[in-house]
Parts: sequence; C-alpha cells; structure tokens
Amino acid sequence: MKIVLLGSGNVATHLGTALQEAGHVIIQVWSRDEVHAQQLAALLNTQAVTDFVKIDLHAELYILAVKDDAIGTIASQLPFTDQLLVHTSGAVGMDVLEGVSENYGVIYPLQTFSKSKPLNFKIVPVIVEGNKPEVVEKLLRLAGEISGHTVVMDSEKRKALHVAAVFACNFTNYLYTLSEQILEKEGLDFNLMRPIIMETAEKVQQFSPGQVQTGPGVRNDIETMQRHLDYLKNSPQLHELYQMLSQGIVNFHYKP
Amino acid sequence: MKIVLLGSGNVATHLGTALQEAGHVIIQVWSRDEVHAQQLAALLNTQAVTDFVKIDLHAELYILAVKDDAIGTIASQLPFTDQLLVHTSGAVGMDVLEGVSENYGVIYPLQTFSKSKPLNFKIVPVIVEGNKPEVVEKLLRLAGEISGHTVVMDSEKRKALHVAAVFACNFTNYLYTLSEQILEKEGLDFNLMRPIIMETAEKVQQFSPGQVQTGPGVRNDIETMQRHLDYLKNSPQLHELYQMLSQGIVNFHYKP
Repeated sequence: MKIVLLGSGNVATHLGTALQEAGHVIIQVWSRDEVHAQQLAALLNTQAVTDFVKIDLHAELYILAVKDDAIGTIASQLPFTDQLLVHTSGAVGMDVLEGVSENYGVIYPLQTFSKSKPLNFKIVPVIVEGNKPEVVEKLLRLAGEISGHTVVMDSEKRKALHVAAVFACNFTNYLYTLSEQILEKEGLDFNLMRPIIMETAEKVQQFSPGQVQTGPGVRNDIETMQRHLDYLKNSPQLHELYQMLSQGIVNFHYKP
Repeated sequence: MKIVLLGSGNVATHLGTALQEAGHVIIQVWSRDEVHAQQLAALLNTQAVTDFVKIDLHAELYILAVKDDAIGTIASQLPFTDQLLVHTSGAVGMDVLEGVSENYGVIYPLQTFSKSKPLNFKIVPVIVEGNKPEVVEKLLRLAGEISGHTVVMDSEKRKALHVAAVFACNFTNYLYTLSEQILEKEGLDFNLMRPIIMETAEKVQQFSPGQVQTGPGVRNDIETMQRHLDYLKNSPQLHELYQMLSQGIVNFHYKP
C-alpha cells in the first residue's frame, strides 16, 4: 500500500517503521512541525511536507497519528473526498472523522511508544474499526501484516480498553516515578528497584494479577502499613495514595 | 554453611533453594504448619520440624523467614544464646532480634516471590545488616554467593527501600488488577494488556521513569481525562484513583 503519515510523534514513528518493514511504502510524512516532519521522513527515507495542499491525494491510506485533541482540527482541514483515513487514538471515537471522507476508521496500537526505544510490533495488539465492512476488512488485513494480535472493536469498547491501559501503563509508570523519588530522598539507587519491577510485570504474563498480589495489604498487616504511613507523614500526596491503594488491596484480597 | 530455615512461605522457599544451589546445606525446615514444613523440607530434601525444642542448635545460620508480625513472637521463643539469627523482612527493624541471641542481623532479598514461579536469584538485590562487623561480613559474603547485587544498609534506610518497593511492586500489581477488572466488565481479554505491561516495565530498565511517562496526564490532555472520568463515574474508587494519579502526573510533568 502507498501510505501517507500525518504526524511525526512516537506512534507515527513506530507505526510507520512497522508498515515499511512489512513492505508498504510511506510516500509522505506530513507534520506542522517542519523539523519533526523531516526527521521522520529521513528515517523512513521519504518526503516531508508541512502544507495541507502538498499532501498527495492518491495514496491508498492516510494515517492521522497526532495528539488526541488535534485529531478533529487537523482532519477537518484535509481536502479529502473518499480517501481512506484513520486515526490511531485509543480515547477518541471514530466519528471525529465523519464528514472528512467517505471512508474512515481507526488503527489503534495498544502500546506505550518512546522514540528512543525500538520494540517488537508483532506482539502489539492492534485494534481496528471502520465505517464500512470493506474498510474494516482492509484495515484488519493491514493490521495483520504488522501484528500477530488484531481485534475489531467499536469506539465505546476501545475507550474502556484505553482507560484500562492508563491504569496498567501510565499510572504504573507514575508509581515507578514515586518509588524513584523515595529512593532519591534516601540517596538510594533506582537500580535496586529494577529487578522487582520486571518480576512484577513478568508474573502477570502467566498469572492473573489478583493471584500474585504480595505485600502488607494482601495479608492485612496493619503494623507494617502503619509504619509505612508514619514514614510518609511529611509527604501528603504519597501518604494519601498509600492509604487509598492499600485499602483497595485489603478490600479486594483480605478475607478475615 | 549448615543452615536452619525457620518458615515455609515464599521467601523461605526461594531463599532456601538459592542457598542450596550455592552449595549450602539446609539441615532443617521449621514451621508451625506441619504440612508446609514437610512440603518445603521435601523440596529441599531435608528434615521438617514443628517444635521449637527439636531445632538443631548447632547450625551456623538460622533464617527466620516468617510474616512480619510473627517475627518478634517466634524469635522470643527460640532457645538461642549466640547462634547467628537473621530475619528477612524489609519493614521490620533489626532490633526485633535483640536479646534473642548475641549474633543477629537481616538478609532482605528485594523481590516479589511466588512459590509457583521460579526466578533468577542472581539479579535479586540482597540487603544485609548485622549487629557486629563480623556478622555483617559473614552475611555479606553469604549474600554474594547467591546474588550479584548486595548492599549493606541500616534498618531505617531499609524501611524506606521497602516503602519504595510497595509503590513499585505491590501497588503496581494492584493497578494491573484494576485494569483487569475494567476489561472483565467489558468482556475483554487481559491478554490485550500483557504486552503494554511488559513494555512499561522494560522501558524503566534503561530509562528513569520520569523520562518515559506517556498518556493523557503528561500532556495535560484535559478532554481525554474528562472522558475517562465520565466512563468511571459509577466506580467511585476507580474515579478517585484516576483523579489523584492523573493530577500527580500533571503536577510532575506538565510545564505550561
């Protein structure tokens, strides 16, 4: 397929790379930011454009991989009629593209992307939605070429999936950040925490997280939790989070 | 070394196995629970005892690997004089063993252990403390035989380290649990979440978590966060956690 990438961020970079590796041709990279457009175009060995009027209208697919709150604004400026246009967001409904083209949909790769870290796209779940059966079919075939895990899902379910991912990924990474803050305050190295972080993630690859919960909360060890809360008494945010999360674990797990 | 294991849970199991693999001899497993004592003794091919009076007093090391709130009670019943006794807890001070023996300390392996999952002990940080320089030296040497990452640390620092681990491991696993709950409610498979969980943990093996934060909070995407909060409006606990954690991410990351 001849594909135009609209966007130059983490998702555009990883998705563009995966599509190219699967044999597709990225004929243009468009971005409002000229430097970013040129960087990604150089990486994909293709042309960079920054004007809407310079976008090639004869590609077979247009992938709009921009920030969620920019999707609607940018889409409305595309001079499309029936070009196949998809966005890549978990949180935004497909209908934001209604009226922009006769053929539209979503390709949402459920992963946390950083430009600086390569990843194996084959194991990334790719969620697909389309406004017509032919669109769904086409997008599903394409998704199957870059990933071994493809699912058709409507916008409502995709939104729920995205909320679940915020808990499992974004909030988790923030807990790592808080953990690092505690260590830094004590002059301790974050390397101490890296193995337990890996093991915690690895465990739930085989088990359900409810089966492998450990720590003071799961055994309702009130003394330890109180000692920890004492330690956190001068950090109101950490104190409150500790209390809420521990109470959640106790409620979920502890059968007196 | 001839070692007696006091306890039969996850830590006793993994630590006993690692010590045996390093060439040490577990001469007894003591546990109040006869079935558990026998199970672990069978695994380690040694003797199980349940009476304090049957504990062999001529071992070179006694490892008390029991629940935090049982350490003091059990230690006080041990008929020791100068036997080398350690506990394995992150949260409990070394001084809980004061008066039980003339030689005591702590060997705290910083990891989340499940009996059902084998792990590579070599990468587990092992934290050591002792009441005398000779004890520290002896425990450090032993720790170095089972792990490539050993650190001497006092009880106060170890407590802080344990709090940091609760955030990075126990609370993280609970977020996985909440994520699974959201998926279950929608009839979606937790397998969808497993790759992003692994990737989130893998990223911070190389980077600082603050460098790789993603999601709506880090870009202060108010619309997406509001859509997510709407979705969670009938789950007060999830709604409150979402708000607190998102606000934390915004405060930490967003520079308007």
